[in-house]
Formats: sequence, structure tokens, C-alpha cells
Amino acid sequence: MPNNSSPRRPPLSPAVAEVRVGVRRALAAARDSGLAEGALVLVALSGGPDSLALASATAFEAPKLALRAGAVVVDHGLQPGSAEVADRAARAAEHMGLSPVIVRRVMVGHGGGPESGARDARYGAITDVAAATDAGAVLLGHTLDDQAETVLLGLARGSGAASLRGMAPTNGLYLRPLLDVRRETTHAACAAEGLQPWTDPHNSDTRFSRVRVRNAVLPVLERELGPGVADALARTAEQLREDSEALDRMVEEMIEEICEPAEAGIAVSVSALAVNPAALRNRILRLVASSEFGSSLDRGHTVEIARLVTDWRGQGPIDVPGIRVSREGSLIVFTARGNDSESRIG
Amino acid sequence: MPNNSSPRRPPLSPAVAEVRVGVRRALAAARDSGLAEGALVLVALSGGPDSLALASATAFEAPKLALRAGAVVVDHGLQPGSAEVADRAARAAEHMGLSPVIVRRVMVGHGGGPESGARDARYGAITDVAAATDAGAVLLGHTLDDQAETVLLGLARGSGAASLRGMAPTNGLYLRPLLDVRRETTHAACAAEGLQPWTDPHNSDTRFSRVRVRNAVLPVLERELGPGVADALARTAEQLREDSEALDRMVEEMIEEICEPAEAGIAVSVSALAVNPAALRNRILRLVASSEFGSSLDRGHTVEIARLVTDWRGQGPIDVPGIRVSREGSLIVFTARGNDSESRIG
Repeated sequence: MPNNSSPRRPPLSPAVAEVRVGVRRALAAARDSGLAEGALVLVALSGGPDSLALASATAFEAPKLALRAGAVVVDHGLQPGSAEVADRAARAAEHMGLSPVIVRRVMVGHGGGPESGARDARYGAITDVAAATDAGAVLLGHTLDDQAETVLLGLARGSGAASLRGMAPTNGLYLRPLLDVRRETTHAACAAEGLQPWTDPHNSDTRFSRVRVRNAVLPVLERELGPGVADALARTAEQLREDSEALDRMVEEMIEEICEPAEAGIAVSVSALAVNPAALRNRILRLVASSEFGSSLDRGHTVEIARLVTDWRGQGPIDVPGIRVSREGSLIVFTARGNDSESRIG
Repeated sequence: MPNNSSPRRPPLSPAVAEVRVGVRRALAAARDSGLAEGALVLVALSGGPDSLALASATAFEAPKLALRAGAVVVDHGLQPGSAEVADRAARAAEHMGLSPVIVRRVMVGHGGGPESGARDARYGAITDVAAATDAGAVLLGHTLDDQAETVLLGLARGSGAASLRGMAPTNGLYLRPLLDVRRETTHAACAAEGLQPWTDPHNSDTRFSRVRVRNAVLPVLERELGPGVADALARTAEQLREDSEALDRMVEEMIEEICEPAEAGIAVSVSALAVNPAALRNRILRLVASSEFGSSLDRGHTVEIARLVTDWRGQGPIDVPGIRVSREGSLIVFTARGNDSESRIG
């Protein structure tokens, strides 16, 4: 017997359902963490499949959690026709019922390579729009595949846990509801909903290391090591993020207690450094260098300074970029190095 | 004017010097950690370039640190002519002055795949010989390239920091002096010293995932992401090892305090789990499961159990392999699941 009390609906696509679950969980967690009833959440929309599927799911889920949903579209102006692409994305968002939908055109700088220039400009514009609209959260469309690519890029840099932990599911205003969702799922969700995503030509431009990871590296890893590699990379990132957050917090909690001002610098207690495991000792040294001198110690320098504690044989001062570090009795003393002392080396 | 007081020597090859530095540092650190004067150190020798260069450097460095140097050669009997390969390696070791040089033939089991079968048999034989000769250390020839391969294999498994931390420079009796040395350096060292290493045909057998990583994955990573990838992977392993050792130790130090016996199992305090960061909370849960029930919790199970603490909404018991976990008031209770409760599922 047909059910006449409600209109027949086509069955929900599993891909659409999966994207919605990601959005629902992220928004519910944000509400639990204090995002107020009636607050605006903005989808950062490029018009590509990830953010288009995200926008559609957010339009569906936000009202159920008493939130308003809008969108911000950034036109990077890097390609002919970029204004039309942005405009088409904005109209799609309006058609989904998102409001407000704001398009911002940005100028992309060229410092630090084409990827970081576009990224800086994009986040700057998004942050501006979020402030102007008083948005309580910005939703980003990064998927599990993006996370796997980020981990591989971090691995290639070799900067340890900090680079392997990938992108955060939550970082201040920014939420990434799709970090557990495969890219192919967002494509399928768009197809199921009749959405026509834009294909960014930059996604096949092999000048970008991320594109090379996507098109050359990950497929080889999957072929040689098994199809679960992207999942494995994303799971790894999740656990390493936990580990490094815990260790970073421990160091932040103890740092004031074990440091003291020194003549033209800062001193750290040798015994405090000695009593802590290497993971904390090295983080303390890096935190002092970065917070007091704006200097980022690489692994080799960090280990060499740590030897003033763990392998003390009367070594002389160690010069690292911008800083001289020496052991003076029961203290490790960091002092700023001026340009003149650097020019003596060159 | 020629110097007549000492015979002319050819200049020392940089590759030989680099291998010797690795061995010297490892042996000096072992002496500092209590390895006694006159103790025997054994080189685990396959006859391949890594262990052959290691053996030669050990023959040179051990006497300077008042140590005796011997070798153990394992004949896996997996290939025709393996006895001759072992014999040739043993004679090379004797020619270097190593003593004793012991050859052990082993039977390789087939549980867990060809790689782990050979590895288990090899370590079993080496450990036996070390005990029989009262050796104070066993030196293994793993290089920086082996470490990079290990990290990539761990990444593909996705078990987080535990699998990414690679091989330990020191693990009980075992030392790995060449973890900072590239494989090409051991090849160059053999060539410079006129040593003729054996080429293991298994090293080109693509049934082995390690061979695929070496021949297919790492070259693609280096081509697409830059030639420093192997170095970066090894540095990453070093830092992640520090991090996970620190967190593991913290958990071991607190575990007895926060656990108590429960009826047919063990209970952990909810408040102790809640107060710790996720990195420690999840390690506590995994340690209870492994030490009390011999069960290894995967990431999904661990996170689900943790939600009994962090996201408590009256969930029912959670069944994981061999264990049922439930929240009972202020305790998380682990109990063994018998075969009957498992058979109900099937």
C-alpha cells in the first residue's frame, strides 16, 4: 500500500549522505563548543567538487542546528575567466539557499611560490569576510585525499611531527568537516545532486608540488603498497597531531618556570633540561629560540645544543642563525647574535 | 722530501672514514653505557655491502676502544649456493681479523610472509650466538636508506607514531651504527677497500614490499619531491621515536596508579583518563588492552572507547577483539570476552 501522507523522494545518494554526516558532526561539535544559536557559518567556496558538495550539505544541515549558512567565493584573478567562475559558484550557492554569498577578488603576491601566494591571499580575504559578516565559523572543503597529500609533502620536508600532523579538523574559526571523506565521494555527491563543479586547471599544473604528489606519488604508493595508503596517511596524521599537541602543551606549561632572563638574552636551567625526555628537551630549546628570537632551529642545531646538557665535555658556544647558545654553569644561555658576528663567517 | 720514518699510505677514502665514524660513535656510546673493557662485539654479517663495510670498520675501531670484534653469519638456506655465500663472508671476516667468526644455518618458517619468516629465523640465530659467545653487543648494518624504507612501509600501514619511528639506533643488545650513512657510501667503502660484496637476489625480488619501496616508491618520491627525501624520512623517524618514547614512558609511569582490579578484568579511572590529553588517554587504553588481554586495539576501537570518557551519552558496552569495555560509574571496565560471546556474532 503506498504511503500517501508524504511525497515520494528519490533515495538519498550514499555520497551525499556521507558528506552531510561530516558537516553535521562538525557543526554539532561547534555548537557544543559554544557556537551560538542563529550564528552564521560561511562555506569557503571555489566552485570545485569538494567545496560545492560541502556548500550543498551545509545548506541542508545548518538550519537543523539553528545556524545560518552563507558562502565566500574568492576570485584569485590568476586565470582568464576567473570572474565568471566565481560568479557561477556564487549563483550555485544562492540557488542552494546560502545567504549571504560574497565574492571577493584578491591580488596574489609572488613571494614564496605560486601556491603559498594564492593561499595567503585566499585566507586573508576569507578572514576579512568572516569578520565583516560576524561569522562564527568558516567551513573548508579539504578531504581525506588532501590530508594524505599534505602528510606526504610534510614527509618530504622532514621536519618531523610538526609537518606530518597535517591539517587540523578545527583551527580557530576554521572547520574542516570533510577530512574523513574521500575526494571521489565529493565528486559523486555533486553528480547525485546535479551540481556542476568547476575543474581548476591548476589541479593539473605540475609546477605545483601538491599536484605532483596527487598525480604521480600517491598512485605509485597505492600501486606498490596497497590501496589503503591515503587512509593510512590520514590516520597517521590524526595520531601524530594528538602526540605533538600533547607534547607542545606540556612544554608551554613548564616553560616559564624553567627560564629566566639573562644578560642580553634568556637562560634555561640545565637540570630542567636534563630531567626531561629528549622530546620535551628539544621542544623547549626550539620554543625558546622561536619565541625569544624569532628563530627556527633545525634538527641538527637542536641536537647540537642539547648536547650541552646530555653530553657536556666543555664545548664552546654554538652559533645558530641569529642566536649564540652557551653553557654557563647550571644554565644554558641564549643571546642574540648581531649582523657583525654573522658577517665574520662570510 | 719523502718521509722515511713511516710507510706511505694511500689517502683514506671518505666513504671508509664515514663508516668508521658511525661505528666509532656507536661503540663509544656503548662503552659509556657500561660495555666493559675486553667485551666481544659481534657484527651480523650477510656478505652484502652494508654489513661487509660495517665488519671492516668494526675490525678497525673495536680494538681502539678496548673491545674484541667477531662476526656471526646466518645462512638462511633459501637459495642455492647459500652455504658458499655464508662461507665466503666468513672468510672475508676472518681476513679482516674478526674472531670468532661463527656461521649458523637456520630453517625459515613461512608464517607471516617470506620477509618476516627470514627475519625471525635470523634474529633467533644471532641472539643464540650472542648468548653462546657472551657478546656484549651485536652490530647491524642498516643504513639511512633502510630507515627511509622502513618509515614508508610504516606509513602505508597507518599505525601512527609506532610504525613511523623506524628502527632504533640502540635496542638492547643491538646497535645500528650506520643509520646516518647512505647505502651508496657502504658500496663505495667496499670498493675502496677491495672488498667484494655479495648481491642478494632477494633485493630485486618484487614480491617483497621493501624491494618495491626501494626500487619503485623512493625513486618516484625523489624525482617528484626532491633528492632529500630519504634524509627527510630518516630525520622524521628520529624525531617521532623521541616523541613516542616520551609519551610511552609517561603512560608506563602512571598506569599502576590509575588502574584497579575489577570483577573478571581491570578498571581505569574515568577522571584520570579525562584529565590527560588524547595522546596519553589513547595510549593508556591501548596499554591496558595489550598488557592485560594481549589484544592490540586499532585506531577506530581506541577512539570509540575513548568516547566513553570524552563524549559520554550513556553508550552501551563496546566489544573489541577479546575484550568488552564498558563505563560503570566513574570507571572504564575492561573484561575478557570468551569464545561464546564471539560466536554469537558469527
